[in-house]
Order: sequence, then C-alpha cells, then structure tokens
Amino acid sequence: MMLRSRFQQGLDDLRTRLLSMAGQAENAVATAIRAYTERVPELCEKVFETEVMINLAERKIDEMALDLLAMQQPMAVDLRFILAVIKSNADLERVGDQAVNIAQRVMNMIALPNTDLPVDIPAMAETVQSMIRQSLEAFISGDADLAQRVLVMDDTVDRMNQDIYLAMTQVMSETPALARQALDTVIIARNLERIADHATNIAEDVIFWVRGTDVRHGLDTGAALPRI
Amino acid sequence: MMLRSRFQQGLDDLRTRLLSMAGQAENAVATAIRAYTERVPELCEKVFETEVMINLAERKIDEMALDLLAMQQPMAVDLRFILAVIKSNADLERVGDQAVNIAQRVMNMIALPNTDLPVDIPAMAETVQSMIRQSLEAFISGDADLAQRVLVMDDTVDRMNQDIYLAMTQVMSETPALARQALDTVIIARNLERIADHATNIAEDVIFWVRGTDVRHGLDTGAALPRI
Repeated sequence: MMLRSRFQQGLDDLRTRLLSMAGQAENAVATAIRAYTERVPELCEKVFETEVMINLAERKIDEMALDLLAMQQPMAVDLRFILAVIKSNADLERVGDQAVNIAQRVMNMIALPNTDLPVDIPAMAETVQSMIRQSLEAFISGDADLAQRVLVMDDTVDRMNQDIYLAMTQVMSETPALARQALDTVIIARNLERIADHATNIAEDVIFWVRGTDVRHGLDTGAALPRI
Repeated sequence: MMLRSRFQQGLDDLRTRLLSMAGQAENAVATAIRAYTERVPELCEKVFETEVMINLAERKIDEMALDLLAMQQPMAVDLRFILAVIKSNADLERVGDQAVNIAQRVMNMIALPNTDLPVDIPAMAETVQSMIRQSLEAFISGDADLAQRVLVMDDTVDRMNQDIYLAMTQVMSETPALARQALDTVIIARNLERIADHATNIAEDVIFWVRGTDVRHGLDTGAALPRI
C-alpha cells in the first residue's frame, strides 16, 4: 500500500513534468512566430535556448518513466499511461525542433528585404498552437472526445499548408525576386504543419491509452471511437 | 525461470518485429526515391500502401512492448531496451510518413515538365538510407560506437540539404519557369534530412540504452562517449 502510493505520487510527478515540458514547447513555437512577425533575431536566440531546456526535460522524463516501470509491476491502465507519456514526450521534443527550424528560417528572412507576401502565417500558427493545447488538455483529463477533435483540426492545417504552397509557387513564378522569401514561407508553413502532426500524435496516444484501458476493463465506451 | 525464459522469448520477438518494420520503412524510402528518379506513379502508390502496413506494425509493436512490461518486473537493462524499442518504433513510423511525403512531391513533379536540375537527390538518399541501416545495426548489436558514427553522418546530410537549398533558390531566381520543380526538390531534400534525423534519434536511443545499462551496472565504458 505504501509502495502503491509512492507509485501514484510518481505518476503525478510524471504528469506534472510532461505538462511543464509542453509549456516550454508551446512557448518555443509562440516565440518563433513572434520572431517571424516582428523580425527580431533576439527572439530566435530565445527559441534556440528554450530547445536546449526541452532536450534536457525529455531525458529527465524518460528517466522518470523508467524508474516508475522499475518500481513495481504497474497495472495495465498505468502502463498505457506511462507509454503515452513516453511517446508524447518524444513528440513535444520534436515540437521544439520544429520551433528551432522556424527560427532558423526567420533568421534567414531577416537578412532579406522585408516583403508583404499574400500569406497569413500567424493565423495558421494559431490553429496549430490550439491543437497542441487541446491535445494536452485531452491528456490531462483522459478525454478521448477532445482528442478526436484535434484529429479533425489537422485536416484544416493540411489545407492551410496546401494553400500557402500554391500561393507561394505563384509568387515564385511571377516575382522571381521574391523567390527566397516565398521559399522560406513555404518551409515555415511545413514546419507548422509538422507541429500539428505532433499534436495529432499526442491526441492519438490519448485515444490509444483511454480506449485500450476501456477495452482491457471490459467496458465498451471506446468502441464508438473511429479506428485511427 | 519458466517465466523468465518466456520473457526473453518475448524480447527476441520484439526485436524481430522491430527489424521487420525497419525493413518496411527502408523499403518505403527506397521506393520513393526510385519513383523520383524513374517518374513512375505506380511506385508512389506502392509507398502509400507500405505506409499503411507500417502504421499497423507500429501499433502491434507497442502492444507487444506493453505486454512484456506487464508480464513481469523487468530488470533495468531490459527496461531500457524496451524503452529504446518504443522510441525507435515511433521514429520508424515517421520514416514511413516522410517516404509518403516524398512520394506526394514526386506525384506533383510527374505532372510538371521533366527538367534537369543541378541536384543529386539519389546521392543524398544513399547517405540517409545508410544511416537508417547502421542505426538499426547498432540496435541489433548494442554497438554504441557504431551509433556514434551515425550521429556524425547527420552533419553530412545537413550540409547536403543546405547545398540543395542554395542551388534551388538560385534556380528559382534565375529561371522562374522551373520554380515549382525547384521547390519540390527542396522539400524532398528536407524530407530526406528529416529521415536522417530519425536515424539519429534511433542511434541516440541505442547510446542511451547501452550507456545507461553500463552506468547502472557500475561499469565505466559508457562514460567515454560524448554527451548527446
């Protein structure tokens, strides 16, 4: 009983750590997008620094997960939760990588003349950031329905990415002098789309965890969810 | 003892499954690159089909890993191995995603006039594929030195990606009619660079697994490896 409650405490700590890391990852994305809109190199530097912290946090969370697995024989529901943490952890670390990629493109763009391209990166970023937030909310509350809604948002982001791709290829063809800025914009949009994929992965992990749990407990609530 | 040997058998099965999935992922990349060089839509379709199989394999491997964790209290070395499998599994699944992204770009390029751009995608692909192969070899043999060499190759691939980016922006500026082909080429190079990142992740997991094991057993062999 004593051991069990130490284990529960460990699970709580793991959840807290993951949320703190998620906060850092969200922060890195928000900062990279601010760097883009405001063209401030110092904000890019901040993204690079945050990513170092995120990488350290990733290793720490993996170690905590391992320690919990070594501490006692977890029940199926706890095992699935720990697996979801390990996988979401890896996704959040890559959200940090993508924020760095965006910041690198922004550094590049700042060195080029400022242009007004027919594209709304902040709008796309807002949708993507909301996907991260909601996938994490679904994680905290074990809410498979909310996770399911994140999957739907991913289609919106894919469309935005495709629209930006088409608009920028037109700019490249018609105004070659702006080709480099247009190319960097396409790459930033793809980075955002990739962040949306990571949010989708987290949402899928939540569904897998919750549904798997239900199935193993003989309940049928998970069966109504479409296969992913 | 009986339980322990069933567990060992489970670990062997897990390793075999992961290698089989790695084979599918390698195959998807090779096929996508063949589709690029030969401009054959049917090869793109094959990549899309392989990715469906890879996704199924990913879920299956996660389930096997969970079952092993639930079966008995694993020792630290086995725990770290299972964690490395779970993480490499996720990376291999994303290698499949990247192969799909390449195939989608190839479908796009086939619809455009064939052009001779100053770029050698197959050469870059060969380096990337060799990284996947070697990271998996390091995985099988628990060879941290080999894993370390994969990390070094990642720098080569980053340089190749950067060179292609520069060459293609020049094409875009000088020959706007080829802007779309050049853009697709940049995106394919980035997809390859991302696959190299996944190989790097796998190599890092091997080092983490092997070094962590050594450290926990009080040996010092892992300490000579640089921090990652």
